[in-house]
Amino acid sequence: MTEATGASGLPRPNDFYPSRVGGEGQVLERKDPVVHRPAAWVAEPGPLRPPQLLSFEREGFLFRERFLSKAEARALAEELRRELEHRASDPSPELVREPESDEIRSIFCVHRNHPSFARLAADRRLVGIAQQLLGSRVYLHQSRVNLKPGFAGKEFYWHSDFETWHVEDGMPRMRALSVSINLTENYPFNGPLMVMPGSHHHYISCPGTTPENHHLVSLRRQESGVPDRDTLRWLAERGGIAAPTGPPGSVLFFDCNVMHGSNGNITPLARSNVFFVYNSVDNALVEPFGGLAPRPEYIASRDSTPVGMD
Amino acid sequence: MTEATGASGLPRPNDFYPSRVGGEGQVLERKDPVVHRPAAWVAEPGPLRPPQLLSFEREGFLFRERFLSKAEARALAEELRRELEHRASDPSPELVREPESDEIRSIFCVHRNHPSFARLAADRRLVGIAQQLLGSRVYLHQSRVNLKPGFAGKEFYWHSDFETWHVEDGMPRMRALSVSINLTENYPFNGPLMVMPGSHHHYISCPGTTPENHHLVSLRRQESGVPDRDTLRWLAERGGIAAPTGPPGSVLFFDCNVMHGSNGNITPLARSNVFFVYNSVDNALVEPFGGLAPRPEYIASRDSTPVGMD
Repeated sequence: MTEATGASGLPRPNDFYPSRVGGEGQVLERKDPVVHRPAAWVAEPGPLRPPQLLSFEREGFLFRERFLSKAEARALAEELRRELEHRASDPSPELVREPESDEIRSIFCVHRNHPSFARLAADRRLVGIAQQLLGSRVYLHQSRVNLKPGFAGKEFYWHSDFETWHVEDGMPRMRALSVSINLTENYPFNGPLMVMPGSHHHYISCPGTTPENHHLVSLRRQESGVPDRDTLRWLAERGGIAAPTGPPGSVLFFDCNVMHGSNGNITPLARSNVFFVYNSVDNALVEPFGGLAPRPEYIASRDSTPVGMD
Repeated sequence: MTEATGASGLPRPNDFYPSRVGGEGQVLERKDPVVHRPAAWVAEPGPLRPPQLLSFEREGFLFRERFLSKAEARALAEELRRELEHRASDPSPELVREPESDEIRSIFCVHRNHPSFARLAADRRLVGIAQQLLGSRVYLHQSRVNLKPGFAGKEFYWHSDFETWHVEDGMPRMRALSVSINLTENYPFNGPLMVMPGSHHHYISCPGTTPENHHLVSLRRQESGVPDRDTLRWLAERGGIAAPTGPPGSVLFFDCNVMHGSNGNITPLARSNVFFVYNSVDNALVEPFGGLAPRPEYIASRDSTPVGMD
């Protein structure tokens, strides 16, 4: 980690997106496209049509209600139920607990440990769209289930995923996206994902620095890599807040740099979604830009073998 | 407090709604009407018409969008803004802080300290409906603003107000209601009030007992007088969850025993509402049924002088 000097207050020379380098927060320009190589995809069209591509480019997300069938969604929810029963008291770090209780908040790396989530992560309906938007073959950077359990699910505060993946994992450029698939119905009142439309056009460089082994606390409750309130107000005033909701099997595709978060859930109805993060094979991880040791494999894969077919 | 034996595990003889008397939680029958003396009000009709009365009886709440004018709502929000500026570091107990920060969560007794809130509490549009539903003249049991500030507003967990007013304040019967007036827009995503329609027909007697000076912690985060999860699931399965939203000036009338709560608010948009609790003058407070000292006047008025006109 000779090159990395983030922790000492200076960004590395090849850091296009410095953040947590010790100063104030600031708003920087995005230096990468949102839809990559769109021209190539006109010649060789993908699953999304031009209006959907334009909408994703402009808003930073795309919601597809009932993208998976009812039966598929039911089978996944059933797999999750079995998993929870089986691993309720499993102490492994892939299972992250809620900040104020012992209930499971997130399960990481579900595509490695579960055949049906592995199949889904490689499903051409998802991979095809990821390839089209990122303009290349893609690999799985991360997978997780966020359970947002009934009564006890706490909030996920506003953040850009890319900011963390860049600083803590070493993802060089913005050429990744997330897919969130509803395993239970996402209602307006059980803590659905909220996005700030258009926020992905700006890079919110965060104040402060990163403590060592930050992920051990940040996955429960994030306190570093947090945008300041004035910036969040500014983003919300520009683009508002959207919170797409829908039945199990509905899918949200969202850009790696869109500002998003979710409120807690006191209702009895769990809001459980599985997330797959696809990164371009041309954007594989390097040394983390924050200058600390990279997060473990189960959070950020350093194996960029592509998923799905050509 | 010779008669009160709640804290020792036995309800008082005249306690129609025992709760926190040391045992398990249980579901008891409601022993009071929801709409009081409806026959009298047919002879002398009030502001609500029969379908609205029936709906309130069945669901336990009634939402009226833009009940106050835009200008009225704006003036109230302005009064609140000045109040917050003025009292930001005021240590008086009427100002309750958020559980995880120093931001103001609630301001109690606003009808005593603020002319415009005093006027509003006595406004015939509100008092007329309260009188009609409660079948008598009414007085103000409590007033408060719940601020639900942007970024930092934490949840209010599920509860029946009546359960607390009965156990901790000595409200004998279910003959009270709340009015919640939006001072800012209530969106689905900034922690609007949620109600469980129909839940007011059942009295959820809570497990455990009440610690002394409970209000000093319960107004920040309630941990006693909390219904168990199975009962909450049962209520939600029967009647679902409603979360009426709308612009400033919209008003929610809700029965004293309806199960309600609200999620936290990480958005930049405060969800601030003023609440007035009207109780029938025939239902004035007695000794608290929980057997402890009554809560202070600013939370529960022991002066039952009626408000508004005949």
